[in-house]
Amino acid sequence: MSTAYPTDGERLWASLMEMARIGATANGGSCRLALTDLDRDGRALLAGWARDAGCTMTTDAIGNLWIRRPGSDDTLPPVVMGSHLDTQPNGGRFDGVLGVLAGMEVLRALDDHGITTRHPLELVVWMNEEGARFSPPMMGSGVWSGAFDAEAVRATVGQDGARLGDELDRQCWNGDTPADHEQTPKAAYFELHIEQGPVLEDTGCPLGVVTGAQGQRWYELTLTGQSAHAGPTPMRLRRDALVGAARIVELVHRIGLEGGEDACSTVGILDVSPHSRNVIPGEVFLTADLRHPDDATLDALDRRLRDEAATVARDAGLELNLREFWHFPATPFDPALVDRVRNSAEGLGIPAMDIVSGAGHDAVYVAKVCPTAMIFVPCEGGISHNEAENITPDDAARGAAVLYEAVRETAI
Amino acid sequence: MSTAYPTDGERLWASLMEMARIGATANGGSCRLALTDLDRDGRALLAGWARDAGCTMTTDAIGNLWIRRPGSDDTLPPVVMGSHLDTQPNGGRFDGVLGVLAGMEVLRALDDHGITTRHPLELVVWMNEEGARFSPPMMGSGVWSGAFDAEAVRATVGQDGARLGDELDRQCWNGDTPADHEQTPKAAYFELHIEQGPVLEDTGCPLGVVTGAQGQRWYELTLTGQSAHAGPTPMRLRRDALVGAARIVELVHRIGLEGGEDACSTVGILDVSPHSRNVIPGEVFLTADLRHPDDATLDALDRRLRDEAATVARDAGLELNLREFWHFPATPFDPALVDRVRNSAEGLGIPAMDIVSGAGHDAVYVAKVCPTAMIFVPCEGGISHNEAENITPDDAARGAAVLYEAVRETAI
Repeated sequence: MSTAYPTDGERLWASLMEMARIGATANGGSCRLALTDLDRDGRALLAGWARDAGCTMTTDAIGNLWIRRPGSDDTLPPVVMGSHLDTQPNGGRFDGVLGVLAGMEVLRALDDHGITTRHPLELVVWMNEEGARFSPPMMGSGVWSGAFDAEAVRATVGQDGARLGDELDRQCWNGDTPADHEQTPKAAYFELHIEQGPVLEDTGCPLGVVTGAQGQRWYELTLTGQSAHAGPTPMRLRRDALVGAARIVELVHRIGLEGGEDACSTVGILDVSPHSRNVIPGEVFLTADLRHPDDATLDALDRRLRDEAATVARDAGLELNLREFWHFPATPFDPALVDRVRNSAEGLGIPAMDIVSGAGHDAVYVAKVCPTAMIFVPCEGGISHNEAENITPDDAARGAAVLYEAVRETAI
Repeated sequence: MSTAYPTDGERLWASLMEMARIGATANGGSCRLALTDLDRDGRALLAGWARDAGCTMTTDAIGNLWIRRPGSDDTLPPVVMGSHLDTQPNGGRFDGVLGVLAGMEVLRALDDHGITTRHPLELVVWMNEEGARFSPPMMGSGVWSGAFDAEAVRATVGQDGARLGDELDRQCWNGDTPADHEQTPKAAYFELHIEQGPVLEDTGCPLGVVTGAQGQRWYELTLTGQSAHAGPTPMRLRRDALVGAARIVELVHRIGLEGGEDACSTVGILDVSPHSRNVIPGEVFLTADLRHPDDATLDALDRRLRDEAATVARDAGLELNLREFWHFPATPFDPALVDRVRNSAEGLGIPAMDIVSGAGHDAVYVAKVCPTAMIFVPCEGGISHNEAENITPDDAARGAAVLYEAVRETAI
């Protein structure tokens, strides 16, 4: 199938498998935690390929690696592809890696076809996307796009006690290039990624045209009632915090179900106190996560949660403390670039559907300061952040071909 | 008020306060864990009072302390009062202690009035009622009544690593008297206890005539769905174990609410896995506790839980594993002795109401092999197993007076 494409699917798959050997885990996954020696080895492998392809390289001040293929007019801002090479502790072989190595394949295929674009091309490997060793995630793209302060990020202490800034210095990932979108403007940014969800597989569609990223509102709720002995306390005299919490779990679920096809809502944490078989729970802590690609709709979901949770608590005789923990507005991608991705798929004869990104990606930060689009390919069972994460060579080949066409059209 | 009673409320209160000094905690409670030196000191204080009152004492083979006041016909089986002196780690001053010291007050008051009963009287301090250091609870009464095997109880290892049998030997609580109801039959057993629930206080009634103990069925349930990323997984494709668990919490609550005035139902433990803000829970473990004083009704509640929980799981696309963890049949107390308690309260002009014991007590094991009744007095806010546990001197005085009359009537 991939022989019909401008990119070489077999070469891409061989690169993916070679990268997966660095930090390979017992169960077929990869472990290259950010800024470890294995992360460095992964970058070194890529750097060798880039050097062979005649590209130049720099690392910016926060450890993002920029690989550059000159354009015919090098005064123009570059068209950028990218993603990340770091992984979760027991991560998969494709999350992030696919976007980087498909970018490498695009550069190689342009060489094969003897094409020089007008804009220079760049392939970026963002520093610490996963946030597994150093939290929060997406630090490199976050600093570059102005969402995070570089000094605060350097001061972050990891789960193993290491200071991020010290690790940057140790790896010599502390270059002179500023990690700042204002000083290093880009013409466009494209990121190919595995979906990390089940929609494409469920729909039987091999490619997702990502129109934007969901807005997210995260909450912490505490319900307080009265802890008491489960035996001698009649039902009518109880103020059971868990019964109230159960109704809020159901409420959060309904808000997502009734909020339209693109709404998502989840309670991921629920802690019961005192946590004893025969004691009525006096306090329950729970989290809620609401997502929608349209901010006005997300605001309406937020109001519904606040109003109805208050009613649930009042009816159950409980005190409710509801706190918004995090708010990330919806991020629509650049309509012209999204169209270009859609047209590229059509031109290649690859069935595609519009999709909204529910997960965070470097592209979501980049989109705040630069025209951006993303391409999704299916992953088996929607499973990611797991050694069992899997895609097919054809999935990878289709994604890379669409990336090639979209980038070429933008940079030409 | 207590001056109208045959017992001396002030003397009882002084004894309660003196006992509370042994193992007194910073916040006004008591800590005398079973078989510790503080537990021994508590018994020694009581033993001194019993000796002063001319009683004899033995410790049986499992560490129950039996204090004896002779009757005019010592061939008759004794009428027994009792409860326990051990406490929770941050326990109150009255749980168990009230029943023992009110028994002591009954013995003293009979001396005051120069009364010799026909039956001998005994005051028993059961070994390890609380089950806090050595689990399960009610070990001494459980062995005596045949519910537990003495050797298995001696082999129990406590939370601090101590072996119960070694602790019995160390305290010389390993007497020759058999811990066996068949070899040491009793005529009747009365236990005065704080309610440990809110019913008497809520009703404004100062005394409870306990007609029996609730049957209990305890369950462990595990719901299994599919863990997935909270962002990219549409609501319609989810198998969220917590949404199913929330419906089972609501179901358990309804079973108790709709099961009649005496039904109780509680989910006390609920554990979510993987337990992350942005991950759909793939598995939830929860417990359920159903109680009713009538076994046939309890069986009906059991069937409803099994049927409707299965439906909840099926409708949510989840697997359900439901396991009965413990089943304790309902225990009606002896109707003649219950009447005697009721008549004693009436004779003393103390308003009383029938009540069912929702908590476990030594009396519940004893009732399996010996005519038994219990008397409840209110405790402030229904709070127990807590340093804040509180009763008034009048509560204590009323309970002791009713105990006196019921025991005297039975033993005369």
